Amino acid sequence: MAVSYLADNQQRFIDELLEWLRIPSVSADPKFHGDVRRAADFLRARLEEAGVQNVALCETAGNPIVYGDYLTDPSRPTVLVYGHYDVQPADPYELWTSPPFEPVIRDGNIYARGACDDKGQAYMHVKAFELMMRDGQGGVPCNVKFMFEGEEEIGSNNLALFVQANKEKLKADVILISDTGILANDVPSIEMGLRGLSYHEVEVTGPNRDLHSGLYGGAVQNPINALCEMIAGLHDQHGHITIPGFYDNVDELTAEDRAEMAKAPFSDADFEQSIGLPAAYGEAGFSTMERTSIRPTLDVNGIWGGYTGEGAKTVIPSKAFAKISMRLVPNQTSDEITALFQQYFTSIAPAGVTVQVRPHHGGEPVVTPTDSAAYRAAAAAMTTTFGKRPVPTRGGGSIPIVAMFKSELGIDSVLLGFGLDSDAIHSPNEHFGIFNFLKGIETIPHFYRNYAAAGAR
Amino acid sequence: MAVSYLADNQQRFIDELLEWLRIPSVSADPKFHGDVRRAADFLRARLEEAGVQNVALCETAGNPIVYGDYLTDPSRPTVLVYGHYDVQPADPYELWTSPPFEPVIRDGNIYARGACDDKGQAYMHVKAFELMMRDGQGGVPCNVKFMFEGEEEIGSNNLALFVQANKEKLKADVILISDTGILANDVPSIEMGLRGLSYHEVEVTGPNRDLHSGLYGGAVQNPINALCEMIAGLHDQHGHITIPGFYDNVDELTAEDRAEMAKAPFSDADFEQSIGLPAAYGEAGFSTMERTSIRPTLDVNGIWGGYTGEGAKTVIPSKAFAKISMRLVPNQTSDEITALFQQYFTSIAPAGVTVQVRPHHGGEPVVTPTDSAAYRAAAAAMTTTFGKRPVPTRGGGSIPIVAMFKSELGIDSVLLGFGLDSDAIHSPNEHFGIFNFLKGIETIPHFYRNYAAAGAR
Repeated sequence: MAVSYLADNQQRFIDELLEWLRIPSVSADPKFHGDVRRAADFLRARLEEAGVQNVALCETAGNPIVYGDYLTDPSRPTVLVYGHYDVQPADPYELWTSPPFEPVIRDGNIYARGACDDKGQAYMHVKAFELMMRDGQGGVPCNVKFMFEGEEEIGSNNLALFVQANKEKLKADVILISDTGILANDVPSIEMGLRGLSYHEVEVTGPNRDLHSGLYGGAVQNPINALCEMIAGLHDQHGHITIPGFYDNVDELTAEDRAEMAKAPFSDADFEQSIGLPAAYGEAGFSTMERTSIRPTLDVNGIWGGYTGEGAKTVIPSKAFAKISMRLVPNQTSDEITALFQQYFTSIAPAGVTVQVRPHHGGEPVVTPTDSAAYRAAAAAMTTTFGKRPVPTRGGGSIPIVAMFKSELGIDSVLLGFGLDSDAIHSPNEHFGIFNFLKGIETIPHFYRNYAAAGAR
Repeated sequence: MAVSYLADNQQRFIDELLEWLRIPSVSADPKFHGDVRRAADFLRARLEEAGVQNVALCETAGNPIVYGDYLTDPSRPTVLVYGHYDVQPADPYELWTSPPFEPVIRDGNIYARGACDDKGQAYMHVKAFELMMRDGQGGVPCNVKFMFEGEEEIGSNNLALFVQANKEKLKADVILISDTGILANDVPSIEMGLRGLSYHEVEVTGPNRDLHSGLYGGAVQNPINALCEMIAGLHDQHGHITIPGFYDNVDELTAEDRAEMAKAPFSDADFEQSIGLPAAYGEAGFSTMERTSIRPTLDVNGIWGGYTGEGAKTVIPSKAFAKISMRLVPNQTSDEITALFQQYFTSIAPAGVTVQVRPHHGGEPVVTPTDSAAYRAAAAAMTTTFGKRPVPTRGGGSIPIVAMFKSELGIDSVLLGFGLDSDAIHSPNEHFGIFNFLKGIETIPHFYRNYAAAGAR
């Protein structure tokens, strides 16, 4: 049976994942370009070994898309599995207990950049497929298409082009994605909503060169001070975002919906303790869980300017920079918010500086249906393997491709993720529980069998 | 005569300075430790060659002080020459047209870190001494003591200890310093006031680790946003600094003094054009010249936090940092303002973050007398070599040791500087005009002769 094939092979599954994690497939930094391709090639080989057919690296203008399929019977439902093999940059390196690309296992967790997001979760699907092919339980009961991209962390622009150009090839009944999490290892959950993203790099320019603060201080607008003032002006004292029109299209939940959400197990005290904060913080009038799911937010993700080395340098810099992103909720759109931000941020520049706003990639917020055969198949699979029904949740993160798949292919996604909020994805010491990795491999075949049994189309 | 010795030797003087500038004597960065010492040793050798006696590297807990003297007749006045052989860090390197430690001459200027501040100006004194020794015009008419330190750019802490321990050895009638500038090459000037300094590094800590902005955004205080808000709160809308008590001890000039200052040739339009700014900016109610001289100021000199690499990373960082300095005027004191800043900046931290304020070195504001024999000797020297009387000015920069010399040794300083505001000291492409370097060497001997002739004590 499945558990026994899994038990017999789990050490090999883990070892293979560790080998993949050793390849630093950071898509945001050109110096890792060759490693990204090596990671794609590794995945290609593992898919072929598992029995997937037609496996190929599909070239794009950027990193290749690893595609493969297993199409056995047109009468069976077709599942398109999506994942990504690129990872976030790992800096600051000095905050990692062990190096980000030398994975180690500590306390039941695999520590490495990408351990959870998304190599670990993507690899569950490769191994779940292998398991179905070999465990003697009737094989793979659905048609399956695999599509793994290498640019999720930089905006999936080339994936969007690939999808537009391959609509026939990618036809499916549902898209299955493991790039989200569960509430806790004993509280399974399935995300049914995701926030969108609008991400900008801003550049504030004052004098035409760095100046000595003794000679010029007091008589020129300092671009760092100006940038700080502008950023401070993006929230009011109640934590509301001040960009005119920002909330106009926000889908406000009914009191009933909010009451339903509030039933999910969540403790502010546990939340605060887990991140070492004395107090939760956020938009007035909303709970912590609401602030991270149904409300849009604005955060500075990076800031730099002037002298940042050791010691004291009395300079007024010519330029200051920041990376500013907004998480969006239905029915905001990335284009709309990007335009509002650009216009407003430019308008609040104080006299004496000029401002440039450069948008990075964006992504649309999305709500996935919970009344579909695929969602029910996923919920039943988790009920089998966790021993309790999963809670439907609205997540705070963004997987822009979910909205893109819906608009381009007309296909809904099921977000069958197995990570935890505490996995530190995008942070130093990212990790993924071995429990979670194996639970994913165990659960996914149940999804296929439930989905096939429902005859769901 | 002097001009002929200068004319005959000026190429060698320039070549020697270029050789000194090739040594990257950056005191703020430990990796240049050996170079700082090499720069001291170079200076020691040149002083000996010029005929200075008792030349030695006086060890301190940090970089050595280069001391030498030439004591010929106790009835003559004694001049203590001060300068510094350390330089500011040169980054950002990519903004230099030519590398900061490979000096080149372009358009009549020597381009290198330290070309003006202060190696170029300090070296004028070494060559002026050589000139007096060798030009057959009667030798050096005063007793002279040279004291060059290697830690001016990091706060002169060890110089202060050296001065306290060597009060007898350093006895003099005046201290002569070339570490300031003139208004223009055809508008000679002598600074008679300098601003003090209070310099801090601040660290704002939010969550105990970097977090994913999708999962946590909206529910935690982002330390970058918090830092920006705090910095924005340090000025009001009129450009006044909001720290309670900050202006309490500021020496407010009389309307007559301000009218006198306003007579100095100064054009807001030229100022704005020289730094490429559309509009001057600063504290309401004061002119640009006043803002940079008689008014205290606050500037952020550096800021950093979160992801600052290429591309987009959606992180809420655990920490954000800034370097914040204030320029002080009489009768503010560095200790008083440092305490006020620490208290206020900590008090304005929003809920959800903690703040650490670490003071760097400070310096006291100072006004030097213009009714002394030494000032008159300097003014007459400039009148001879420039062909017009110098304007007395109040400078914006800080030379904390001027106040320290006054309090520890009881000696006033004369700030006989030859730089220009446009020399880009502390900035990329620092330079020093060959006109200015040679004019300094020409002018300094006149100072000694005028001062000796006045029999001034």
